[in-house]
Amino acid sequence: MRAEIITIGDEILIGQIVDTNSAWMARQLNNIGVKIKQISSVSDDREHILKALAEAASRADVILITGGLGPTKDDITKITLAEYFGVGMVENAETLANVTRIFEKSNRPLLDINKAQALVPANCEVIINNNGTAPGMWFESEGKIYVSMPGVPFEMMYMIDEAVIPKLKKRFDLPVIYHKTLLTAGEGESFLAKRIADIEDRLPAHVKLAYLPKLGQVRLRLSGYGANENVEAEVEAFAAEIAERVDNILVATEDITLEKAILNRMEAMAATLSVAESCTGGYVSHLLTQHAGSSRVFAGGGVVYSNELKQQVLGVESSTIDNFGAVSEETVTEMLNGALKNFHTDFAIAITGIAGPDGGTAEKPVGTVWIAVGSEKSKVVKKFTFGSKRLQNIERSSAAAFSMLNTLLKEVKN
Amino acid sequence: MRAEIITIGDEILIGQIVDTNSAWMARQLNNIGVKIKQISSVSDDREHILKALAEAASRADVILITGGLGPTKDDITKITLAEYFGVGMVENAETLANVTRIFEKSNRPLLDINKAQALVPANCEVIINNNGTAPGMWFESEGKIYVSMPGVPFEMMYMIDEAVIPKLKKRFDLPVIYHKTLLTAGEGESFLAKRIADIEDRLPAHVKLAYLPKLGQVRLRLSGYGANENVEAEVEAFAAEIAERVDNILVATEDITLEKAILNRMEAMAATLSVAESCTGGYVSHLLTQHAGSSRVFAGGGVVYSNELKQQVLGVESSTIDNFGAVSEETVTEMLNGALKNFHTDFAIAITGIAGPDGGTAEKPVGTVWIAVGSEKSKVVKKFTFGSKRLQNIERSSAAAFSMLNTLLKEVKN
Repeated sequence: MRAEIITIGDEILIGQIVDTNSAWMARQLNNIGVKIKQISSVSDDREHILKALAEAASRADVILITGGLGPTKDDITKITLAEYFGVGMVENAETLANVTRIFEKSNRPLLDINKAQALVPANCEVIINNNGTAPGMWFESEGKIYVSMPGVPFEMMYMIDEAVIPKLKKRFDLPVIYHKTLLTAGEGESFLAKRIADIEDRLPAHVKLAYLPKLGQVRLRLSGYGANENVEAEVEAFAAEIAERVDNILVATEDITLEKAILNRMEAMAATLSVAESCTGGYVSHLLTQHAGSSRVFAGGGVVYSNELKQQVLGVESSTIDNFGAVSEETVTEMLNGALKNFHTDFAIAITGIAGPDGGTAEKPVGTVWIAVGSEKSKVVKKFTFGSKRLQNIERSSAAAFSMLNTLLKEVKN
Repeated sequence: MRAEIITIGDEILIGQIVDTNSAWMARQLNNIGVKIKQISSVSDDREHILKALAEAASRADVILITGGLGPTKDDITKITLAEYFGVGMVENAETLANVTRIFEKSNRPLLDINKAQALVPANCEVIINNNGTAPGMWFESEGKIYVSMPGVPFEMMYMIDEAVIPKLKKRFDLPVIYHKTLLTAGEGESFLAKRIADIEDRLPAHVKLAYLPKLGQVRLRLSGYGANENVEAEVEAFAAEIAERVDNILVATEDITLEKAILNRMEAMAATLSVAESCTGGYVSHLLTQHAGSSRVFAGGGVVYSNELKQQVLGVESSTIDNFGAVSEETVTEMLNGALKNFHTDFAIAITGIAGPDGGTAEKPVGTVWIAVGSEKSKVVKKFTFGSKRLQNIERSSAAAFSMLNTLLKEVKN
């Protein structure tokens, strides 16, 4: 069974927003064995929407649509769906009650354009929106299923979780897609490929291997397709063989991020972590704290953007900054020591650098970053020279720090 | 002139990565007046890629393709393009030299699969990759232009900036698309729409207004289409009229984020800012520091995830946490005072809450967040009750804090 995703909205096509909904929906559908054939982003334009619907229906059994359901004039998804199915609009009592309830709760008057949110194509089954006013809509027509949902992520997510997934499971006898991901750090894609070439050559046609490189890490994703229950065991066996082969650079045998793997490893060691972030400006902390349960390992730390805060929060000596500069081996070492001492954690990460685009010199160009990780007993300090783009420097510095800490933790354990 | 974007890669269709490339490319093309008709994500599958190329060429003049150019077996974009154009593969000397140089620089041996990166379809013009080994490729065929680029964001970005945009400008007599965005915070989409309905009704057909709501903010985007040079003045006049009408909730008259508007406002006031983040775990700091020049306003702060760090870094009294809890009006107030005192800034933001999914109680459910913003002279403290999803709670807490600070700064100034 195949599905397609259509996201509707000029804001995607002019790049004002990044479409994060599609990746999320794709993951949920993959989990229940539904393969996404294509994701298409189209404009708030009647003809374009009609054509995209017809094209998707020619390739897929289920078409998931997001966006264009707001109360304002540029939102035309609903009326266009009615035209596509050749039906009129009717008022849905349940939706009107939901909209009324939401407005009453916040003591706002119900405007006519809000009431119009209760109008839906006559052939749809409404999916109630527990987080907003725009209803979701489930259509069945000529053997195909169409689901229209709001573009607001958490409204859509609720509908997928609570209504769409359960209904699809009931409706279809779903095949099995089994994914297994190995996360590696510290070796390039082509070297990895060479090391496991003989294993890859032995993969049967229904098992695919993909290399997903990102920021010094490579994810190896094995995907087994088929209704056969052995697929899972088969994929796991190949994954185990690859994991053994690349053990020295293996971070995790599940599809998690590098920092989550570190949190897991440190939790198992009952170790704690703090940070001293200058040029990464809170990004390392954010990556850690986005994971539920991170507080069991991560105590917090300092975003010491100014030199004053490096001294105030971490006890870096002003003479160190004066003599060697804020971006130096000496300063990053004092930052690490300050974090370990002041935040009372077993391990710490310290980062100072020039994220850019300004602030570089001939000696220390934009992209120069010093990173220190370690404990009282064992410390590693490294200098990196990244590129000229600020956000990339922040991302790469964070990834490099986690990679260094991961290697250190592996060594500590062995 | 119309363009389409095709992103190739199973990793997008199973949701393992979010396609951020398309939004970025769309913005760059919009800036030079090229309208994106559709964005399509397709799998690493020969037939599917061939079909997507043909469909895109039937609708657009320029087709930008990313992904599937890695050295490994799952990457088939290059060979599929050769098949699409009915040409063979040839070795490109310049690319081979680039690949060789990159491997020499890092002292790695050049493998056969790396050398194979220099093979390109015979009809292409190579775009050298200054950040990696996979070449970009520019094709012209039957009046259409096709550009194939790597999926690694900064490799693609370099090619767009340095080669694709200049070549497109030379090739086409581009029309004018003029966008103007107004950022508002603190009023819902439908209320805004009602307040400016009469202005919206007067917009000519070639000027469109879109409402882009997100996290308590609404962006109003006016887009004027046409080769006419008056379009810019026309759009600006409508924007000025709307800005005057919604002045009380207006944050910025340009397409920037809420936190960037705050940084601009504070820089103009010569004021400084620090943070004390508990449940947002560094996200507020990250949002601020992703902007170049943020150090002129933002000094840094504490990510005080543990109670110990709240005391250690901010001087919150242990009795306050014991008596009222870490998530309370009393604690957030002491966090704000501690940040102002210890970090020596004019203004500060303090946030403490229960991001979830665990840690909630009947009295303080997951999603309970206390936020305090202010200066020595003027403080505002508010309690919010968000939802059950961790990342959303982090995002909404950060947005709410910035919205509170923006309102406070507007009042201070008036």
